[in-house]
Amino acid sequence: MSTIADVAARAGVSKATASRALSGRGYVSEDTRTRVTDAARELSYVAHSSATSLATGRTQTVGVVMPPVDRWFFAELLAGIQDSLLTLDYDLALYGVPEGSQMRDRLFENVLPGRRFDGIIAVDIQPSALELERLQLTGRPLVSVGPYSEGSTAVSIDDAAAARIATEHLIELGHTDIAFVGGASDGKALSLGDARRLDGYRGALRAAGLTEHARVAGAAPTMPGGYAATAGLLGDRRNRPTAIVGVCDEAAIGAIIAARRLGIAVPTELSVVGIDDHQHADMFALTTIGQSPREQGHEAVRLLMQRIDRPDAPLEHVAAASALVVRNSTAPPR
Amino acid sequence: MSTIADVAARAGVSKATASRALSGRGYVSEDTRTRVTDAARELSYVAHSSATSLATGRTQTVGVVMPPVDRWFFAELLAGIQDSLLTLDYDLALYGVPEGSQMRDRLFENVLPGRRFDGIIAVDIQPSALELERLQLTGRPLVSVGPYSEGSTAVSIDDAAAARIATEHLIELGHTDIAFVGGASDGKALSLGDARRLDGYRGALRAAGLTEHARVAGAAPTMPGGYAATAGLLGDRRNRPTAIVGVCDEAAIGAIIAARRLGIAVPTELSVVGIDDHQHADMFALTTIGQSPREQGHEAVRLLMQRIDRPDAPLEHVAAASALVVRNSTAPPR
Repeated sequence: MSTIADVAARAGVSKATASRALSGRGYVSEDTRTRVTDAARELSYVAHSSATSLATGRTQTVGVVMPPVDRWFFAELLAGIQDSLLTLDYDLALYGVPEGSQMRDRLFENVLPGRRFDGIIAVDIQPSALELERLQLTGRPLVSVGPYSEGSTAVSIDDAAAARIATEHLIELGHTDIAFVGGASDGKALSLGDARRLDGYRGALRAAGLTEHARVAGAAPTMPGGYAATAGLLGDRRNRPTAIVGVCDEAAIGAIIAARRLGIAVPTELSVVGIDDHQHADMFALTTIGQSPREQGHEAVRLLMQRIDRPDAPLEHVAAASALVVRNSTAPPR
Repeated sequence: MSTIADVAARAGVSKATASRALSGRGYVSEDTRTRVTDAARELSYVAHSSATSLATGRTQTVGVVMPPVDRWFFAELLAGIQDSLLTLDYDLALYGVPEGSQMRDRLFENVLPGRRFDGIIAVDIQPSALELERLQLTGRPLVSVGPYSEGSTAVSIDDAAAARIATEHLIELGHTDIAFVGGASDGKALSLGDARRLDGYRGALRAAGLTEHARVAGAAPTMPGGYAATAGLLGDRRNRPTAIVGVCDEAAIGAIIAARRLGIAVPTELSVVGIDDHQHADMFALTTIGQSPREQGHEAVRLLMQRIDRPDAPLEHVAAASALVVRNSTAPPR
């Protein structure tokens, strides 16, 4: 099997340069990168062999801990993490956080501490203080994705600001009776990110002197959740809101479907705004606050590689971009 | 750190029995399993240490190769694979098949052959003959999920039968003008599973003497795909079908949403049947052919563990269960 030295010799560069060019880490000119990757291809060089790992003391593997990936956000984020890791010749070891506290305990107590990887990306798992401590005790660099800035480097959007901007958009159109669909009816079920979105909605109403109009229809952050909560909200004809802020696009799309079923036209009779810019937002002409979980995945990998190279670097919290995308689900009230 | 011998001594069983109880592989009585897992917990035993791997010569890792997980089926299947692997104390190394042929080539040529794992689960990647050969050259047991029975042990539903049963359900209700939504307009984009579903639809029409009524509205197997194709199909008022078979529930749900937008009542004016029993099927009262990708994930792991234990076992193709679920989106034609 060819070695990195063979590749370096063929490309006419040092081993260190060849390694940088193939790993994607550290600066190499485009021309050099092309020469090295051509040489690697010609020699059928297989990077990341056990020999490589032994030489560097690295496993070339990143552990990703995340909830079930059956929601758009997690799937997109995972795709972003994966893109970046493939480019860097790293493997991704995926640990879904299982339902049920016993299995979850087992994951944090037994499974993760026993595994070998160079770093961990923890996605929206809202680790308890104890779980976070266990992750840190593994001694590996940790990057969180989600609104958890304590104890680890993190990347997330500003959830409160996103919901505030969504609500302000409706207020600027002239709405005063604006409901929030998605605050879980059971307080405990509300994730920290969703709780911040609810705060952002309340903050916007407060700033506009509309606090007494605030009303929250408890709903899971899903299409069926938004559908059911909205059907309840619109059922009382004499007390209908003129606008809805969905905790996420899935809930907002559920709200639009419910309105259509009840013969209430969107946006002329009801405005709906979401948060996320989900893959189906365009199909429903949904006005929303866009974010890119795929780019957040790239960013998380970038931050983790920095921490792997410099484990003592100060913690940082990177705010991911989000912006209002106006489509056709919002209009002035009649 | 505690060893498996410590756990065995505390539980009063042999090392082999303790290992079987903790790995979940091979028979152990419930009582013994409980004693061993209790002992492991009391001793804070961390399984799958490097020492374990060295002793067994196994990496305790399974490589999963799959397309982007942003569709319900893949997310559910991955969750099922993950459940099973966690129970068996195996790790999951995830390799998304990247878009673009160059990255895909790199995955099959360089990345996978260089990685260490005990077996591979390849999900719906429609490997070319060359790619399949490369996977087999790695010398590791391989299990496919999807309609690919050649060259590897595989688990999948019978896609043709699923679509045939869906179509027959409509024929039995009295429909003759039944369209298929989801045959890609560009033949090349149709996956093998989707092609078999189209075959099943055509076969049912043929058996009922309705071949001349067959019509296919090209659509991606997604909600927006089904929406757009159905909007086109229903646009011509004088030539509307009375029923639609969606290539999958996502396309069928898109069809229902399109019908509602055009003021066409489901099921009184249009019947719609899907395939999958997607998480949103119930919300749309969709009649469908149910399958469980989560259980297929469990089954894939079970088959792979068999092949890891007995690499020379004959190849087998396991047909996963599917069954008609009648809800409220289908009715006799008016």
